[in-house]
Amino acid sequence: MLHVGVIGATGYAGSQLVALLANHPLVEITYLASHSYAGKRFSDIYPSLFSSCDLLLEEEDIEEASKRCSVLFLALPHAMASKLVTPAILERCIIIDLGADYRLSDASVYESWYKTTHFSKDLLDQAVYGLCELKREQIAKANLIANPGCYTTTSTLTLAPLIAKQLVDPTSLIIDAASGVSGAGRSEKIDSLFCECNESYKAYGVTNHRHTPEIEQELGLLNQAPLMVQFTPHLVPMNRGILATCYANLKEGVGEEDIAKAYQEFYADESFVRLLGQTLPETRFVRNTNTCAIGWKVDKRTNRVIAIGAIDNLIKGAAGQAVQNMNIRCNLGEATGLPSTVASPL
Amino acid sequence: MLHVGVIGATGYAGSQLVALLANHPLVEITYLASHSYAGKRFSDIYPSLFSSCDLLLEEEDIEEASKRCSVLFLALPHAMASKLVTPAILERCIIIDLGADYRLSDASVYESWYKTTHFSKDLLDQAVYGLCELKREQIAKANLIANPGCYTTTSTLTLAPLIAKQLVDPTSLIIDAASGVSGAGRSEKIDSLFCECNESYKAYGVTNHRHTPEIEQELGLLNQAPLMVQFTPHLVPMNRGILATCYANLKEGVGEEDIAKAYQEFYADESFVRLLGQTLPETRFVRNTNTCAIGWKVDKRTNRVIAIGAIDNLIKGAAGQAVQNMNIRCNLGEATGLPSTVASPL
Amino acid sequence: MLHVGVIGATGYAGSQLVALLANHPLVEITYLASHSYAGKRFSDIYPSLFSSCDLLLEEEDIEEASKRCSVLFLALPHAMASKLVTPAILERCIIIDLGADYRLSDASVYESWYKTTHFSKDLLDQAVYGLCELKREQIAKANLIANPGCYTTTSTLTLAPLIAKQLVDPTSLIIDAASGVSGAGRSEKIDSLFCECNESYKAYGVTNHRHTPEIEQELGLLNQAPLMVQFTPHLVPMNRGILATCYANLKEGVGEEDIAKAYQEFYADESFVRLLGQTLPETRFVRNTNTCAIGWKVDKRTNRVIAIGAIDNLIKGAAGQAVQNMNIRCNLGEATGLPSTVASPL
Amino acid sequence: MLHVGVIGATGYAGSQLVALLANHPLVEITYLASHSYAGKRFSDIYPSLFSSCDLLLEEEDIEEASKRCSVLFLALPHAMASKLVTPAILERCIIIDLGADYRLSDASVYESWYKTTHFSKDLLDQAVYGLCELKREQIAKANLIANPGCYTTTSTLTLAPLIAKQLVDPTSLIIDAASGVSGAGRSEKIDSLFCECNESYKAYGVTNHRHTPEIEQELGLLNQAPLMVQFTPHLVPMNRGILATCYANLKEGVGEEDIAKAYQEFYADESFVRLLGQTLPETRFVRNTNTCAIGWKVDKRTNRVIAIGAIDNLIKGAAGQAVQNMNIRCNLGEATGLPSTVASPL
Repeated sequence: MLHVGVIGATGYAGSQLVALLANHPLVEITYLASHSYAGKRFSDIYPSLFSSCDLLLEEEDIEEASKRCSVLFLALPHAMASKLVTPAILERCIIIDLGADYRLSDASVYESWYKTTHFSKDLLDQAVYGLCELKREQIAKANLIANPGCYTTTSTLTLAPLIAKQLVDPTSLIIDAASGVSGAGRSEKIDSLFCECNESYKAYGVTNHRHTPEIEQELGLLNQAPLMVQFTPHLVPMNRGILATCYANLKEGVGEEDIAKAYQEFYADESFVRLLGQTLPETRFVRNTNTCAIGWKVDKRTNRVIAIGAIDNLIKGAAGQAVQNMNIRCNLGEATGLPSTVASPL
Repeated sequence: MLHVGVIGATGYAGSQLVALLANHPLVEITYLASHSYAGKRFSDIYPSLFSSCDLLLEEEDIEEASKRCSVLFLALPHAMASKLVTPAILERCIIIDLGADYRLSDASVYESWYKTTHFSKDLLDQAVYGLCELKREQIAKANLIANPGCYTTTSTLTLAPLIAKQLVDPTSLIIDAASGVSGAGRSEKIDSLFCECNESYKAYGVTNHRHTPEIEQELGLLNQAPLMVQFTPHLVPMNRGILATCYANLKEGVGEEDIAKAYQEFYADESFVRLLGQTLPETRFVRNTNTCAIGWKVDKRTNRVIAIGAIDNLIKGAAGQAVQNMNIRCNLGEATGLPSTVASPL
Repeated sequence: MLHVGVIGATGYAGSQLVALLANHPLVEITYLASHSYAGKRFSDIYPSLFSSCDLLLEEEDIEEASKRCSVLFLALPHAMASKLVTPAILERCIIIDLGADYRLSDASVYESWYKTTHFSKDLLDQAVYGLCELKREQIAKANLIANPGCYTTTSTLTLAPLIAKQLVDPTSLIIDAASGVSGAGRSEKIDSLFCECNESYKAYGVTNHRHTPEIEQELGLLNQAPLMVQFTPHLVPMNRGILATCYANLKEGVGEEDIAKAYQEFYADESFVRLLGQTLPETRFVRNTNTCAIGWKVDKRTNRVIAIGAIDNLIKGAAGQAVQNMNIRCNLGEATGLPSTVASPL
Repeated sequence: MLHVGVIGATGYAGSQLVALLANHPLVEITYLASHSYAGKRFSDIYPSLFSSCDLLLEEEDIEEASKRCSVLFLALPHAMASKLVTPAILERCIIIDLGADYRLSDASVYESWYKTTHFSKDLLDQAVYGLCELKREQIAKANLIANPGCYTTTSTLTLAPLIAKQLVDPTSLIIDAASGVSGAGRSEKIDSLFCECNESYKAYGVTNHRHTPEIEQELGLLNQAPLMVQFTPHLVPMNRGILATCYANLKEGVGEEDIAKAYQEFYADESFVRLLGQTLPETRFVRNTNTCAIGWKVDKRTNRVIAIGAIDNLIKGAAGQAVQNMNIRCNLGEATGLPSTVASPL
């Protein structure tokens, strides 16, 4: 059994991760830390996981954690991981960071979008961006894996084949996305109160959401040239799920079959990408799974493609992809312990 | 007191209309028809309106209705109004049609998007598109008023100043909108069941939603040249509200102040348009009101403007605008009986 | 115009109160205080009330407030009002307290259920329990009015006729109630986060909810002898609304007609009680109104009556009843500025 | 592999059953029927189960089905199963009926509550009520298993120890329960539309809900004498979950420890009953699991116990218990293929 730990275990991403790890057949959780709830049992905070995980929550101590775990997951607010991780820790322990600190290879881009200092720029070189479908080989060898943002995962997987196969104008990309409220995390904010979210819908982070440079970085690599995207997230009164509706102008001569073929070829061997073609995904199609479902329509009238991707933001958008990264890195079988299809239709 | 009636009184738009008319100080409801519930009292179907409107629902009979009412509202599925309305009826009665039949001035556009025949093309000439803020003078003289679609109202009001003042590239318009479930109407459809909508989010009508040609018609008039829009609606698990997130490429040299000035000038005298500037609207800001709230951001990085409009789909998007049209046409004071601000913050 | 003020203006009850007062034709708001948001405008915090109330929020200062207002509403956490109110203030200003401090006439009962000291026991004598339908005459003369709890209002109005007319066994009362999440207030608590409430249902405060002694006090008065109730509240994933399902064993010989007659007689002249008889109320029937809707069923099999009452917790359960109290006390017409029927069926 | 089939596969209970069976390691689905969708694939109707179950839906034909399956599940409206099942079918095939037809051992009770004729009274003798925790031995030998109602399962499991151990007055039982909307099934009813359920809460079936006689039958057996319960269900705006809040007067001398001991002894060996003691269950604690969670409080003031049980109505309340019945009957290991703990904390 692989020994694993989680720092930041009681947030929404962290607790989903604990739930997945607790049911993973090849790992054993040997360390859980929570700043807010140290001293309590995990199932005191999440009674729904009673008997599934009753471990004691400890104070955050990455030194100790890295000694007791072969893989350590960090689920912390940004700028915290970059303070904690050191070369010494990376020598004895694989770090999978669910936060933003090691996602952007250019520290100045990070500092400009996050308005903070990066505290371990020297480690950025060895960090691998853990979007499994795109970086599998690098992930397999990395000791520092930057788990992607939820919006980035959806947007990048949805647009990747179109960019990689050069079917669309890279200056025309508009990504209009929406997320359930768990994306805002489990923190005591007025904006996340039930009555502030229920029966309403809004855009937020317009022009400045921090997943923008991540998407640009990853799509830029596929484009083999820098590009910019217009990214606008919205908040939906539901717990889980992200849908990204992506618009792109078709290059001349590109038709429906080219689009379909691009998707089919690009994702031919992926167990966690489900291509729906003309059937457009709904977030419930992938709830509680690690799957990204993608559908698309070509609009001949306007000469655009509208490609739509859906994931569960806490699984493929966070904890599930983190487990997938661990599975790849530790050779446990990429799909082990990860649901690819819903267990409940509702 | 003006005598008014509603055919199709028990659908969601119809019942909202009855609620507004029942509380309107200058009108008296003298006729209500409902195919499904003829013979029952309105408040049997909507106990929440007990004592507010206890009228008997009659079978639909436009001849009879047009004799008992000075203004008759039609809230019917498309292709039904165009069968019912005749020149004779229009001579004795003002018709405000909440359906789609008289919205598109070109019958062939209607027939192509709605896949049906138009049954009274000869009346299209006298129909006025009832988007009050844009057509006030024509509405004041019309006997056949086509109340706009909910998405059209939001999208057109949000983009109108930018198009009219020629600040954006009219080939670049993308409208990504979302609606509460009441937009689907009160019909027995699996897709509208609670469990099919709750905890999910999806796009629908991608590339072919029928409000598209309406938006293009109205924005085209402001543009003084035909244009096309990319319009994609989504379904949000909430009862009411529409938000339209509109993207447009800025013309060269256009800056933030030009945008702000355009909105302020265009809507200087409007009591039902609320300009929020950099504060972006949420649908709850306008719930239960006839107000359209609009905010915007200029993205200097991408040289685009993102303009966001929000309305209550059943009020400004349907019943409220119908009352506003009646108020204009019958000179009752445009805002009479219409809420412009929320009575309850939640 | 009556000058009125609110201390605690930005909580859910407080902001609903501001919304009602801002639209009340006979009052002018001359003072608003909010500890959390002093220095901002009310509509900065509640953009939905933009233009309806743009007053500046001040720091809480009851001395100052009582000089600028004829009626001052307090919407504060418990134990705060009892520290602030003094005889001097009550001489120049009518206090309507939406909190719990002056509801229980016996300070020891208060201290035992609330686990705190009462700081102005000497004022309890002059406090009147502001359940308008039961205490109208006393309210008309009181300078210190204790606005009832939301659950108390629903439960007491629902059971009052049965107790007052001695139709049921007072030892058998069980009240199983449920509330929307706004009942928990606008405070930054994990338990009130969207993701903690949505898609779940739970009981809370079982055996020890603080509205229990209030209900017992008021029903005990009607019973002319002390009684106990079993009161169990639940949390429903919705913003607004309370429903109380009340069970009582019928006294021998009591039948359906006795029950119906009791309700009709008891509430013969009430504009804010709507008797539905065998039609059972749903919370949406009274949303955004000051109405309490009541229905009942007699179960001959078990010899019990099940009486069900519904209110909007923020209106009849808080802000609306506070305005009703002001209207009674200041002779403004009891229903002035208060909605009795829904403006929107959804 | 055991060959199994489902008639009524596309309703909410049926589709949840298909989802569980599709993931069950010891069975193979060899027959699926749906009257509404015959000719389509299951995953056309439930795209969320794409690749998990893509079987073709057939027209309902119990003769054919009973030849192709060792176990056949019926998920049909009441009065349909009693027309279909025959002794011949029961000789070659185990029937697990998720409907009501074989639950009540007294046909006259069935006919009186369901207002319909029972079409195979002669089979009632061999039908076993499939509440697994109470009837395990009989289930193991039955060819006709009547899967319990969702409310019955919750209520009976919650009250069973108190009744069986004679700790409470059996004339005092009041069960106030609430369910998510999936309990109403996947049928095209106005009452189940999103906008009719969302943001509201109501009681229904007051005094006459059809699960009442089931609860009375099962608790009466434990009581060794007939008893009556007051049962009142409510509708909660959520997809899944049932909570039953059960009130009972304590017999003289019964205290907290007696209650706790009764639960612990009664459910000592149950893998799908989770006793929470003073921690009261919320429906989310058991969402997507086959577990019934139970908590309780003794109210010394009123001398009552309030016992609260929670299940997932579609799993332990329907499809999960059906699988559990199959597992018991076919000796597959009672917990096989059934989740006992949540896979996702939200």
